[in-house]
Amino acid sequence: MNKQNKKKFSDKVINRLTLYHCILTDYILRNIEFISSPQIAALLKIDDSQVRKDISLLNNVGKCRVGYIAKDLKENIEKTLGFEKPKYAFIIGAGNLGSALAKYDNFANYGLNVLALFDNSSLKVGAKINNKQVYHISELPNLAQKLSVEIAIMTVPREFAQTTADFLVKSNIKYIWNFTPTVLFVPNNIQVWNENLMGNFLQFTYQK
Amino acid sequence: MNKQNKKKFSDKVINRLTLYHCILTDYILRNIEFISSPQIAALLKIDDSQVRKDISLLNNVGKCRVGYIAKDLKENIEKTLGFEKPKYAFIIGAGNLGSALAKYDNFANYGLNVLALFDNSSLKVGAKINNKQVYHISELPNLAQKLSVEIAIMTVPREFAQTTADFLVKSNIKYIWNFTPTVLFVPNNIQVWNENLMGNFLQFTYQK
Repeated sequence: MNKQNKKKFSDKVINRLTLYHCILTDYILRNIEFISSPQIAALLKIDDSQVRKDISLLNNVGKCRVGYIAKDLKENIEKTLGFEKPKYAFIIGAGNLGSALAKYDNFANYGLNVLALFDNSSLKVGAKINNKQVYHISELPNLAQKLSVEIAIMTVPREFAQTTADFLVKSNIKYIWNFTPTVLFVPNNIQVWNENLMGNFLQFTYQK
Repeated sequence: MNKQNKKKFSDKVINRLTLYHCILTDYILRNIEFISSPQIAALLKIDDSQVRKDISLLNNVGKCRVGYIAKDLKENIEKTLGFEKPKYAFIIGAGNLGSALAKYDNFANYGLNVLALFDNSSLKVGAKINNKQVYHISELPNLAQKLSVEIAIMTVPREFAQTTADFLVKSNIKYIWNFTPTVLFVPNNIQVWNENLMGNFLQFTYQK
């Protein structure tokens, strides 16, 4: 990733760009070569001008009479958002959700590579989920250091969330993607993203 | 839910209120009776004044010298956001993610009840996941009508996403919680929430 691409985009722009990326992936799978900003806007029920503005933030996007070249625009988004820069993560908790996320191969399309899972249950340790080994949680500090992993995807039960987070911080994990329904207390240098599933859900069914 | 509670909150407020709810649930589980707005603000790394402003939007929140009564504030949020009003949903796709969501009992705490799963694979139809029956997808229109279900949680593979969405719309589903990495084309009267996991993830690791 070169310096030019390092300019900061707002969270909303990043979110929309990944949705455009989903749409482009579909178009390409369906062998459609061109896409226009009104087509993207219609699918997302947003304004055409918003789409054009977002795309104008990317570098060197070519546009022709019939629209953007889907393949080029997709690659441009990938480059801009750093999908090509691999990121390595561990999943903490090899339960239902942890296993589902380990099997979710779509992550790799965005440069996110899950290297292993960790659990404290002897029933799970030693198993393989989607070719990823489940290790005992006590092995995490060593493996995180050895493999330079700084991202943890946390799917442990609620009651273990905070103690697990404390342990991750001590193990030099810097980013916690928190799927537990808990708000974690962590030092200021640690980034936590609360995957607030119910918050998302309520936003769209609140008026129901 | 009475009329007073039907005033519209912004998405951001709803999202924060559900995070406050997570924190309050933790406090109550740990037998802590009171919580102050600076305590909530510190956990979420947001401004104290923001927390107070959000809470002031709720009806009749009692505050004493040492802060809010955790139990009362939690119930107030539940009432305001309509957690007490049960919502019924089907999960479409009984694969890894669908199964994980079917086993995620936390949904019920927010009034979301998953009644059944649907799949088109004979290997899955007939099974039970967390006491929820997996039906063949062809049974969905009848069951949706019989059980008055308008919410579908969609976890099918990408390539079946649009045809499944078309089928759901024909079956009178009104809300689609879309976990597939696809942007769906649906009529304007259908609400779609794209659970854009990678968009969320990239927002917090983008600078990495």
